[in-house]
Amino acid sequence: MQEIIRKKIENIKMGSCVEVHAPATVANLVCGFDVLGLALNDPYDVMKICACSEKGIRIRHTDNYHLSTVPEQNVAGVALAEMMQELDIDFGFEVTIEKRIKPGSGLGSSAASAAGSVVAADYLLGNIFSKDDLIRFAMAGEKLASGVKHADNISPCIYGGVTLIRSIFPLDIVPLHAPPMFVAVVHPQIEVKTSDAREILRKEVLLKNAIRQWGNIAGLVAGFLKNDYELISRSLEDVIIEPVRSMLIPGFDDVKKKSVYAGALGGGISGSGPSIFMLCKTKDIAMNVETIMKEVYDGTGLQFHTYVTTINNEGIKIINNSN
Amino acid sequence: MQEIIRKKIENIKMGSCVEVHAPATVANLVCGFDVLGLALNDPYDVMKICACSEKGIRIRHTDNYHLSTVPEQNVAGVALAEMMQELDIDFGFEVTIEKRIKPGSGLGSSAASAAGSVVAADYLLGNIFSKDDLIRFAMAGEKLASGVKHADNISPCIYGGVTLIRSIFPLDIVPLHAPPMFVAVVHPQIEVKTSDAREILRKEVLLKNAIRQWGNIAGLVAGFLKNDYELISRSLEDVIIEPVRSMLIPGFDDVKKKSVYAGALGGGISGSGPSIFMLCKTKDIAMNVETIMKEVYDGTGLQFHTYVTTINNEGIKIINNSN
Repeated sequence: MQEIIRKKIENIKMGSCVEVHAPATVANLVCGFDVLGLALNDPYDVMKICACSEKGIRIRHTDNYHLSTVPEQNVAGVALAEMMQELDIDFGFEVTIEKRIKPGSGLGSSAASAAGSVVAADYLLGNIFSKDDLIRFAMAGEKLASGVKHADNISPCIYGGVTLIRSIFPLDIVPLHAPPMFVAVVHPQIEVKTSDAREILRKEVLLKNAIRQWGNIAGLVAGFLKNDYELISRSLEDVIIEPVRSMLIPGFDDVKKKSVYAGALGGGISGSGPSIFMLCKTKDIAMNVETIMKEVYDGTGLQFHTYVTTINNEGIKIINNSN
Repeated sequence: MQEIIRKKIENIKMGSCVEVHAPATVANLVCGFDVLGLALNDPYDVMKICACSEKGIRIRHTDNYHLSTVPEQNVAGVALAEMMQELDIDFGFEVTIEKRIKPGSGLGSSAASAAGSVVAADYLLGNIFSKDDLIRFAMAGEKLASGVKHADNISPCIYGGVTLIRSIFPLDIVPLHAPPMFVAVVHPQIEVKTSDAREILRKEVLLKNAIRQWGNIAGLVAGFLKNDYELISRSLEDVIIEPVRSMLIPGFDDVKKKSVYAGALGGGISGSGPSIFMLCKTKDIAMNVETIMKEVYDGTGLQFHTYVTTINNEGIKIINNSN
């Protein structure tokens, strides 16, 4: 450990705490399966992390989701342990999580816990790690949650905005500028397990579809960077994943068709579902899309939640530093 | 036909001519198979087109490539005929082509003829067509040449710079800004037929490779638009097409490995080959890469040509307007 880092760690006061807001995220951004994600301003988890003289990790939940508080079985615990492995410290952390992003919603609930815990702990330690280090630690949490190390929720959660995960091994994260957009989200409360959603995908895809997909992702990235809403809209097309996975989400086709008709730029399945998101140029359009989402799911008898929010450009936010 | 266009056409003087330079182009830009191309400042074809009172199209070559001068069997003739179908004109065109881009080099020789003829004729007609119209006409020439309508040579030839062909049906061309780059090219004189190069590709690709490819193309587009040479370099990776097609080009692996070692950002097969191109940040690096290319091909006994050039940002150039 470098001397400067050792000094920072020695200076940490036992009992010092920090509170963070860890945002929900949309991964698998339409044609950007596994490589593009964005952060939302709403919903977000509230987490408090305190340094304490007792070694190890203790986790407490103040919500009603009954997630495990055993560190080895909790994504926040696993991510934090991954970070602590790199440090020689003789103290521990207490983590209190108020989960507001419903687990299983497809809105990056596990990523928020994993990323939130390591960003907060790093803040207490005096910001000794790079963002990419933090993503690496948090990916251990994602592996616990879904069986696979992936970064398309964690990266936008930590960086904010839209992020490209060009590669995971080695890690290569590219934050992308994007023009202001509103996001309408509906979370129909059915269960879609990430592992199931992965299994129904074919291992091989038609080359002609792959070509169409990389034309679209190139268009989407260019649209973001050039503030070209029309190009963004034309590029929000997924010919590979969505046609398969959308079958798992009743109401999907109806929501999408009506949202685009109402002026949404486009959208799709958030993460591996079941949430559906629609990007919109104006708040009015996003509100209309939310109304459409409500109408569609009112007709299904399913329980659901909707959100109208914007892209979160700052990532995890340090709210309250009671050092 | 709109009145304004009819008037422009009526004003054309028989015997008026225009000369154009139609640039070579690199299609299938590494991870951008079928969707990304760029124009080069060297080599280029020189074409002269004249309006004449005799109806129809007459073609003449002043080079030694023995290409057909029958309009229906010549890419320039076919493209021009496609344009003339949309016009009600009682005169014809004479096309004189001095081909400097070797046919079969993989440097967009057919695209230059097809695009050059329609751009020049449109200039004589008073610029009545949009760039996208001209691309559509020129694609008829590409279909004659390779059996497939594709636009990844024609689009950069007409637009200049780097262009994304997000979609062909409907046509959606996105010109992309790119930072200044030098391009070293070697054309080993072996024959790789576009149709053969297409046939050896598998119709299906692994999803995991497709994902890696769309991460790379997203990175490449972001690198271009953000002037990020490092990101461009990391993204110049093709895990799908190059591993198959490079087997058709003796010396490919050697040229690529040594060029990257010498500081090239990266590169690959130009079009469907056999030319190989390497993008470089400086002229010095490009000159070193050219030396490497010469050394590798001197050792093979194959005939070859090399070029060190830059990206052509203006596309087809009107040189001499003898209206």
